Order: sequence, then structure tokens, then C-alpha cells
Amino acid sequence: MDGFRNITSGTCPENRFRAQLGTTDHHPLALHLLQLETGRFCRSSKVLLRPRTSQEVAHILRYCHERNLAVSPQGGNTGMVGGSTPVFDEIIVSTALMNQIVSFHNVSGVLVCQAGCVLEELSRYVEERGFVMPLDLGAKGSCHIGGNVATNAGGLRFLRYGSLRGTVLGLEVVLADGTILNCLTSLRKDNTGYDLKQLFIGSEGTLGVITAVSILCPPKPSAVNVAFLGCPGFAEVLQTFCTCRGMLGEILSAFEFMDAECMKLVGRHLRLACPVQESPFYVLIETSGSRAGHDAEKLSGFLEQVLGSGLVTDGTLAADQRRAKMLWALRERITEALSRDGYVYKYDLSLPLDRLYDLVSDLRARLGLHAKHVVGYGHLGDGNLHLNVTAEAFSPSLLGTLEPYVYEWVTRQRGSVSAEHGLGFKKKDVLGYSKPPEALQLMQQLKALLDPKGILNPYKTLPTRT
Amino acid sequence: MDGFRNITSGTCPENRFRAQLGTTDHHPLALHLLQLETGRFCRSSKVLLRPRTSQEVAHILRYCHERNLAVSPQGGNTGMVGGSTPVFDEIIVSTALMNQIVSFHNVSGVLVCQAGCVLEELSRYVEERGFVMPLDLGAKGSCHIGGNVATNAGGLRFLRYGSLRGTVLGLEVVLADGTILNCLTSLRKDNTGYDLKQLFIGSEGTLGVITAVSILCPPKPSAVNVAFLGCPGFAEVLQTFCTCRGMLGEILSAFEFMDAECMKLVGRHLRLACPVQESPFYVLIETSGSRAGHDAEKLSGFLEQVLGSGLVTDGTLAADQRRAKMLWALRERITEALSRDGYVYKYDLSLPLDRLYDLVSDLRARLGLHAKHVVGYGHLGDGNLHLNVTAEAFSPSLLGTLEPYVYEWVTRQRGSVSAEHGLGFKKKDVLGYSKPPEALQLMQQLKALLDPKGILNPYKTLPTRT
Repeated sequence: MDGFRNITSGTCPENRFRAQLGTTDHHPLALHLLQLETGRFCRSSKVLLRPRTSQEVAHILRYCHERNLAVSPQGGNTGMVGGSTPVFDEIIVSTALMNQIVSFHNVSGVLVCQAGCVLEELSRYVEERGFVMPLDLGAKGSCHIGGNVATNAGGLRFLRYGSLRGTVLGLEVVLADGTILNCLTSLRKDNTGYDLKQLFIGSEGTLGVITAVSILCPPKPSAVNVAFLGCPGFAEVLQTFCTCRGMLGEILSAFEFMDAECMKLVGRHLRLACPVQESPFYVLIETSGSRAGHDAEKLSGFLEQVLGSGLVTDGTLAADQRRAKMLWALRERITEALSRDGYVYKYDLSLPLDRLYDLVSDLRARLGLHAKHVVGYGHLGDGNLHLNVTAEAFSPSLLGTLEPYVYEWVTRQRGSVSAEHGLGFKKKDVLGYSKPPEALQLMQQLKALLDPKGILNPYKTLPTRT
Repeated sequence: MDGFRNITSGTCPENRFRAQLGTTDHHPLALHLLQLETGRFCRSSKVLLRPRTSQEVAHILRYCHERNLAVSPQGGNTGMVGGSTPVFDEIIVSTALMNQIVSFHNVSGVLVCQAGCVLEELSRYVEERGFVMPLDLGAKGSCHIGGNVATNAGGLRFLRYGSLRGTVLGLEVVLADGTILNCLTSLRKDNTGYDLKQLFIGSEGTLGVITAVSILCPPKPSAVNVAFLGCPGFAEVLQTFCTCRGMLGEILSAFEFMDAECMKLVGRHLRLACPVQESPFYVLIETSGSRAGHDAEKLSGFLEQVLGSGLVTDGTLAADQRRAKMLWALRERITEALSRDGYVYKYDLSLPLDRLYDLVSDLRARLGLHAKHVVGYGHLGDGNLHLNVTAEAFSPSLLGTLEPYVYEWVTRQRGSVSAEHGLGFKKKDVLGYSKPPEALQLMQQLKALLDPKGILNPYKTLPTRT
């Protein structure tokens, strides 16, 4: 891991938590010392605490703050950039036991819950009441809503319901020194002073620990349709998107794309069959609306248009929910297929739509036989490309060919080197490719203001100081 | 104005700008010294600067920062709380000449422009290209987009397109010391580090001067319908909203309400006729969709339902754009009617939907004959009540009956004492009714970090320190 040596010589707080606290089982905080699961980024943490309330989190942080003990907040631990796992011996503060729903309002659709609620469980809960969560992710079965907010997760419903910065109405956060900041309102509009919750959305636990979330759930659509299409080129994918936005308008809820290489890998490693004629590109379109007949009419008009004009060469429409799930699986299981293909170099980029795929083609030519596969897929409707490169094994020379080349390419297009995954530990040193020095400086100042001792999720998000 | 004396004895920067700068016409900055328009909150400013570029704004702020000169950033000066007018002799930095569109992308709908562009002109520009601005306000003819963002303006399209916190993609901001912070990206998704632009959205020019905006415009709906309905009670208004959200779903773009008192004033002072049977409450519903036939069908199904069930006693549907404008005028011109009724005490509140109107009834009983009219109207779909009280003239005793009573009432419901108007100069001291002390402290710390000398829009947003 690059930068590791720099970190060890840095000024990180030194942890002596266990020695001072003794056996945590008998400690008045009544917290739980558990066996650590050692993941990919997990080094040598010895202590995992699982508070049940904000007050317990406040106690922990006050204790750690006084003693300069570093803390790594953890939700479902499903992030892609090592943001939720300790680097050295940070104390893990897990939200796993903070899994209570506080309230749900049947008219406004506002859900208030503790940070450790699992996204899929929340989805089920609000769907039974005629609403949906405004976000959906592949990791929904294990990710926590607090982690989703802390990482400003994007996902599959972003195109329709927008960013968590708009749908999260309120937060309760415990600050580094143990202060509980209660901004857990349930109001759609509130212009009283600075919107402090925004500081914590997407800051990956480096400015505070999110303990509760208030979030606006949209009404559950009564009709959902999924279409899977083959396109002859990327230009046609883009034109299909424009046509689709015009003709499907307000019912469009997802516009995802994948290239032929993705389909090949999904077929080879997962035995999923391509549901349409082989094509250079595939598009998955989902509509969600309040009236099935109207939606079907709009969708068939659109399909007639794109098939007639040659933008789409072949297509299929899911006739039922089972079939819709099968079509979604082709897109959602790409990550799984890639991981079975070998070592995966992953990039999660935002790019201007018209240049979005150029990087994939460019890289394919650049890498030649050095890579097994170079694939591009993602949330096209949001300008979000997932660029992945597979190889037999990790190779420093291949990494050297990829980086900083990919980041520099993205910078030239004024793109983002992390569209939705965040920076965490793995990507923190590439922040400067997407943000100017003045922004980096202000971020450092905010960190110093909110966490002057640097105990919250150290070595994450912000670049290693040189 | 409460708090005025405290302010004069405070530690505000003293302005000597004119004396040092000489005649600004000949100053190398080539800025313009103009006659001041003295508005309601305008005290004794002698200098109004109208820079054309961010660099000129940077020069001004650097100059002022070095010399401890206070600055009042100003857009279209249409705010309701005195946020954009100087309190003493602050130098006004107007965005009036920063009115250039930088770029517009026909596929993504991303508009980049300078802060001084007038909202209505931007609307016209993007509508010609098949898009709409995600916000619309009564003041659109003169308000600036930079001011809209600085005050986190809500308005008439909030229900459909959400908050500016979601639709603003990037900002360029000049910090207090003249540093230009360029976060003017056009990406829908960007999770690289802290989202600094959020600091400036809604901070009313107290943390930096917004000089350019990147904003996501949704596609222009091809069909717009407006219905105006009479409801027998507030409970029926709420039930109509629930029914409407279920049956109109994704095409609902506005749900506004007004009470019978509003209609009376609009009739008396503006000679606008009520288009339906007299009722205790009126509702204006707008739909915006991509297919006229479908929308009309949904709307007529909904109207049949609410008329049949007695939720609505009478209704009218606009047959053309002229008629739609007439219906909108009933709602949009309430403010004007109120101002002709006498002195107006204005409150802009967020409340839980089921208690939203109780405050109006309560206050009507409490004030009795001391007030001419107590009216309630607003963006019901967003939980936003505009509560207005008129009287023959300003009276300290009536004010004393209203405040802090109204604020305390709102606090008990965990509402917001400023839903969309912000705090500015008039409401800054009521911030504590909606935010806890820990939040106020963090806001003060942010102010101190970003504007250590306190030169940016002093005496605004944050409470007077006691």
C-alpha cells in the first residue's frame, strides 16, 4: 500500500486503549470487546466497541479524545476504498447495535433511525408503508445507513431521487470531543444558519461519528419496468439516453450501461446468458411510475423509436419481477465477475458524458496484452464510469502504467477521480487531481477545527501531509 | 430594530474605504462608484462596487481584508430578511455586472454562469434549449442566481426538483482574504473530499462571496396543467395532498395552499376574483410531465376522486397558459395584497404537516381585534407555512404578543423559524429557537475560521453575541 511508511512516521495518536481500560466487559460503559474480523485493510486493532446509543458513542469519544486514542468508525464495512477499517490499532467503533428505527411518518415519508440500520431492512420497512428508500446499492444487505451517509453513497436510484445531500433532512453526530450535535430535524426546508449536517455527509467519519439519520423517502412507484437493449456504438448509447430522457421523462429511474467485455465476463464467470443479440454496448433502462398503463405506453413508444432509428439493434422487456431481477443481475453482478477474473484495478470516475468511454478505449490500446480485460460500465445517466482492469495478479509495473495516467486523463476532462466511492485510505492521495490547492487547504482547516487531535478515522480522506 | 444598540457597541470593522481609495472611477481596479439606492435596511453605505470578474472580487476582498473594511455582498436585493443590505457603512459588492453565461451543455443540462445572472433570464435561456431552471421564485425578474444560492432559496419548484443543495453542482467563491476557491465543476457526482460548496449555500454571504454557479437543469416538461380547488377544512387539504401524491405521483410539481383570508385580501386589494366557490381553504396543484394525454388522464382521475369523496367541494382546471397564469397569480400575489393591507408581520416557518395550520388558528384567537388579518398560505407540499399578520401600523405591543410566542410555538413542534427566507439581519437572533447551542457554537467557529476578521456581511445570520 503506497504511503504506508509515511504514515508510520507521521504524528498519529498512539493507542493504549486496552491497557488503560482493562477488560471492557466490566467497564462501566458496558461496551463489548469482540474478536476482530481482519479484512483487507485491517491491520492490528485489538478493540471493537459496539455502542447502542449516541450517549455511549459520546462516552467513547470523550474518553478517547482525552487520551489521544485514535478511532475508526465502522458501519457495514462494505466500502470500496478502505474507509471503514483501521490502518494500525485504531479502536473500531461499530454502529452494528445502533439499529433501531426511531419514527416513520406516513404522510411526509420521513424516516428517522439510528445509524446502524441495514439499508435493506429499512427498504423493507418503508416499502410495507408505501414508500421507498431514496437510495439503493448492491451492498444493501449489509451496509448501514450511517455509513451510506458518511460516504455520501450514490448507487442505483441517484438518477431519479438525487444525492443524499438533498434527501437527508437531519443528522445526529457525535463530535471528536464527545459533544453530541443534534441536528436531527425532519423538515424539508430549514434555512436557519449554516447547514452543519452537510459537513458530515461524505466526510467518511473524519469529522464526526453519525449516530442517527432523518431521511425523506419518496412514495413507492406502483409500476416498475426494466428494458435491456443492445447498442452498436457508444455514440448510440448517448443518443439513446437523450431520446429516453425526452420520451420517458419523469418515469425514468435508471440508465445503466455496460460494454461487451463486461457481458463476456458475466457470461464466462457467472454463467449468465446475454438476453439480446451480441452488441458492443448494452443499456439497462428502468422506469418507475404511478400508473402502469401510461408507463407501458411511454416505454413502447420509446422502444419503437430507438429500434426504428437504429440506435438500438435489439432489446428485451422484463415481463415480470423475476425477469426484471435477472436483467438487473447482469449489471449488478459485474463486480463479482471481475473479481473472479483475477486481480482487479478499480476506478470510479465522473466524466463529461461525451468523453466518458474514450478513456476505456484509450486504456485498452495503452495496456495491450499487459491486462486481461479492460472494462467500462456504470451509471451513465449520472456521468459515472466504473473503469476496471483485470490481470492475473497484482503487478507494480501495470499499476505504474495505470497511475497516474488515469487520474491525469480525468483531470484534463475536469472529471472526478472518485464519483461515489469516496477516498478512504486507498484514494486519499489522489484528491489533488480533482480539487485545487485552495480547496485542500480549507479541507485541512476544517479537519483541524472539528478534530484538532486527529483522532477520528486518521489516515483517511485527506492526503498524507508531505 | 432590536439589537441595534448592541451592534453599534460591538467590534465591527470600521470602514474608511472611500477615503483611502479616492475616487474609485480612477482606481486601477476600474470599479464603479454609484449612487446608493437606500432601501429599508440600508443605513449609510457610501460605496457600491460592481466588479465584472471573480478576479475583481478577489482584489476588492483582499484590499478590504487587509484594511479591516466590512463588505456587504449583494445580488438582486430581493431577500425578505435584510441579508443583502448594509447595516452601517459596509461596502456593497454587487454582482449586477457579473451577468455572463459561461456554458450550457445540451445533453447533461448543466448551466455554468456568473453569480449576477438574473433568474428569469437564465430560465428563458435554458427553456429555449429544452430545459428549465430547477428553481422558480416570485422575485425571478430581479433576483440573481448567486443570491439564490447564497440564501438557499426555495420557491415554487422545490417540491419537484428539491433543494439547491442537490441541484447546484459547483461554485466559485471568493473567500474573505481574497482567495479564489474554484469548485466550479459540472459533475453530478463527486466524492473527492469534503463538499466545500455546501458551506456557502445558504450562508448568506457571511463565509464567502459566490462569483459563479454550476447548476443542473431538468428537461423542460412538455405538458403543464394547473388546477385550483376549494376544500372545506384543513384536514381535507392534507387528505387531498395524500391522494394527489398517490394518483399524480411523478408529475406533481406544486402543491400550494391559501386560506379564505388570503383570498379575501387578494380580492379586496388586487381585484382578483375567486375562480371557485367560496371555501375555507384553497389548493393550487400543478403537474408537469412529458406526455399531455397521460397527464390529463391522471389529473381527471384525481379530480373525480377528490370531488366524489368530498375532500374538494369545487375546482377549476386551466384550459390554457393564460388561465394557468391567472390561477398562479392568486397564490403568487398574496404578498402584494398583504402589503396593501397595512403593516405586515411576516413569518416563514417549517412545521409538521398535521400541525401546520394550528398556529394560524391559535394566533387568530390570541390576537383578536389587535390584528387586521391573520393569514396562512404557502408551500404545503414542503411543509412550509407563510404566516402573516397585518395591522394598521407597526406596534411594539402587537410585536410583543407575536414574539417570542410564534417562535416558541414552532420550537415545541420541532419546526424551523426560517424555512426558506434565511435569517439575514432581521431574524438572526431567533436562530436559537431552531438549533441547539452546540450547533450555534460550531457555526460561530466556522465563521471565525473562514472570516477571522468578520468583514463579510457582518451582523447577519449569526446571533448578536451577548
